[in-house]
Amino acid sequence: MSEQHDAVDVIRAKRDHQPLSDSQIDWVIDAYTRGAVADEQMSALAMAILLNGMSREEISRWTAAMIASGERLDFSSLSRPTADKHSTGGVGDKITLPLAPLVAACGVAVPQLSGRGLGHTGGTLDKLESIPGWQAGLANDAMMRQLEDVGAVICAAGSGLAPADKKLYALRDVTGTVEAIPLIASSIMSKKIAEGTGALVLDVKVGSGAFMKTVDDARELARTMVDLGTDAGVTTVALLTDMTTPLGLTAGNALEVRESVEVLAGGGPADVVELTVALAREMLSAAGVSDVDPADALADGRAMDVWRRMVAAQGGDPDAELPTSKEQHVITAPASGVLQSLDAYAVGVAAWRLGAGRARKEDPVQAGAGVEMHAKPGDSVTTGQPLLTLHTDTPERFDRAVASLEGAWTIGEDRPERPDVVMERIA
Amino acid sequence: MSEQHDAVDVIRAKRDHQPLSDSQIDWVIDAYTRGAVADEQMSALAMAILLNGMSREEISRWTAAMIASGERLDFSSLSRPTADKHSTGGVGDKITLPLAPLVAACGVAVPQLSGRGLGHTGGTLDKLESIPGWQAGLANDAMMRQLEDVGAVICAAGSGLAPADKKLYALRDVTGTVEAIPLIASSIMSKKIAEGTGALVLDVKVGSGAFMKTVDDARELARTMVDLGTDAGVTTVALLTDMTTPLGLTAGNALEVRESVEVLAGGGPADVVELTVALAREMLSAAGVSDVDPADALADGRAMDVWRRMVAAQGGDPDAELPTSKEQHVITAPASGVLQSLDAYAVGVAAWRLGAGRARKEDPVQAGAGVEMHAKPGDSVTTGQPLLTLHTDTPERFDRAVASLEGAWTIGEDRPERPDVVMERIA
Repeated sequence: MSEQHDAVDVIRAKRDHQPLSDSQIDWVIDAYTRGAVADEQMSALAMAILLNGMSREEISRWTAAMIASGERLDFSSLSRPTADKHSTGGVGDKITLPLAPLVAACGVAVPQLSGRGLGHTGGTLDKLESIPGWQAGLANDAMMRQLEDVGAVICAAGSGLAPADKKLYALRDVTGTVEAIPLIASSIMSKKIAEGTGALVLDVKVGSGAFMKTVDDARELARTMVDLGTDAGVTTVALLTDMTTPLGLTAGNALEVRESVEVLAGGGPADVVELTVALAREMLSAAGVSDVDPADALADGRAMDVWRRMVAAQGGDPDAELPTSKEQHVITAPASGVLQSLDAYAVGVAAWRLGAGRARKEDPVQAGAGVEMHAKPGDSVTTGQPLLTLHTDTPERFDRAVASLEGAWTIGEDRPERPDVVMERIA
Repeated sequence: MSEQHDAVDVIRAKRDHQPLSDSQIDWVIDAYTRGAVADEQMSALAMAILLNGMSREEISRWTAAMIASGERLDFSSLSRPTADKHSTGGVGDKITLPLAPLVAACGVAVPQLSGRGLGHTGGTLDKLESIPGWQAGLANDAMMRQLEDVGAVICAAGSGLAPADKKLYALRDVTGTVEAIPLIASSIMSKKIAEGTGALVLDVKVGSGAFMKTVDDARELARTMVDLGTDAGVTTVALLTDMTTPLGLTAGNALEVRESVEVLAGGGPADVVELTVALAREMLSAAGVSDVDPADALADGRAMDVWRRMVAAQGGDPDAELPTSKEQHVITAPASGVLQSLDAYAVGVAAWRLGAGRARKEDPVQAGAGVEMHAKPGDSVTTGQPLLTLHTDTPERFDRAVASLEGAWTIGEDRPERPDVVMERIA
């Protein structure tokens, strides 16, 4: 591509509230990927975008340019339609684990490219890696074969997808420009569209444990992403879901795998089951499959069967015992009554501090670490009963984990009103 | 200094319209100078400052932090008070050349640290370097001696003054963050205050040939700089002056030196004389000298005497013939009437294209190149008379210079109303 633009002119245009042209956007993304636009220029542009915004047309073109920076997967040769799910990240959010095999069991292939965790939210790959033998890395042809044979793949995204996004995301992280809805939306959607799925369901979390703290922000992000998917020809639906309290009763890697297997066995916490089935229905419907009820496939063991084959296909032993932590610390209820609240962010930070998460990309995680909850908001508790069990291999971490849970829960008399798991649907 | 802050927190604060604390400002400037804050972080912060502004307190602290990043000159041992002038840059602005010796002739020492030109405005050092033998570089002790002996020095600013500003200015230039009044004001004032002058007069240009195109912007910049000077204990006054048309009748290096010598000899264009005397009065008054009229010192040759000694002290021969260009091209008046306007920016670009200015810091300039004007707005002209003479050593440059003058002047019947040279005074 010839150098028909100048970085300073593009920055100035956005700075001065002018819309960026298609050609300016194509050029700046390509030139940044090539290194012809410098980091300090892109970060100034990102700040101008954060403060001055982008129109739907600009975000759409920006996303397309990021997709064009790398390779694009194509699942059209598969014998089944495909559907993908993306969650904006929450505490105890293990939904991908039961969801992918469940949807596959209903006839829709699920190519789920996932990431590792950073900060207080866990990563799907970190969770699965607690299964002895399981491997996250998969070449494109192996992924394609597994999708055809098993119907579901959860694996690491290759570095060839949207390299512009990878570079831009790392830059935004150190320049205070993460919190821009146009950039968040285009970052997520460029990867998801490049992954080549035919249908996409977005789980946009709202609340203390989520990236979006308010319903208004979550709604704007969801609307922006649904528009982007639609503009790119991908059937896209978003659910706004509650993240004021953790999902299920566990936050941690092996702890969450264990809970996911309970769900696949027809048990498990009600909120995890409810959200898994709700997202499965949306994925099936978006992929054009309307005659199957995922609740049945969960109840009769078909989803569990796909799970076992999916784990085995990637080297994991579905019958192996999952790792447990070396040390536990129990926090008990100081009074009897009804648990009023249990803050998602605090639990996420505690699990992270116990070793379930990482502060930097290169840090290791502990498979057995995390937080086990013995009650959820609305449950009755009695003085002295276990409320939370903290798990870690490194007991010197207990103090800071306990500190992060200070004031994170309250016990009262009345039964609190709990928000619905699924708060809103945006299509 | 310990790392008590984090760059992302500082960027986020300004992004979210929170004032930066003294400690945040001190840290970020120091850390940026040391390289602990990266270019891509500083450019994001600069964009946030450009779009969200800074309070007087923040700008004052920012300026102080930039001064603290380097050395500071001290003229308190001189037997005379000092005064300095700074112009925001215009076309044909040779005022420093007659002004420095004139003020020195009236008993106030003038330590004038100057720069080279970039773009359509010329640089004072480029002009003086057209005098055979004259040297811009001067060690601090030589400068001090010359100030004591001659009373006036015009020389290159040492690299030890406000190194944070030098680094930040280069960054702003490539990241679309030049046009932020807090950053422009603190950039200028950090250097001027570090130079240690006791009094400062600012010549803030307004109009097509200036950086500030509107009176409102110029007034805001002037007010911000006067506040900064005052906060730092330097008596500071600003004049807003007209830059819709060039100052005097020449734009170019040797051409402007010749015109300056005419002014020092008691002649020269009226606007150059008027502005030189007005700025001299302000400098003398700001330095506490009120019993001398600079117009007398210009008329009786005392200023010329200081000029000759000042040039000679830096190796220049005040009697040497100045270089002239090898080629000339004359543009004549196509009609008789009154010259209505002559656009400063167009003349500046023409002089630049003829070789008087440079596009990049490392480019050379031609001593003889530039534009000579034979009429100013308000003057009568007759068909065929020379209007402009273009000078260059490289005649292939004439075409682009002529092109930049297309539509830059108009001839009409009525005498146009001309703005005053000095439009406003801000103290």
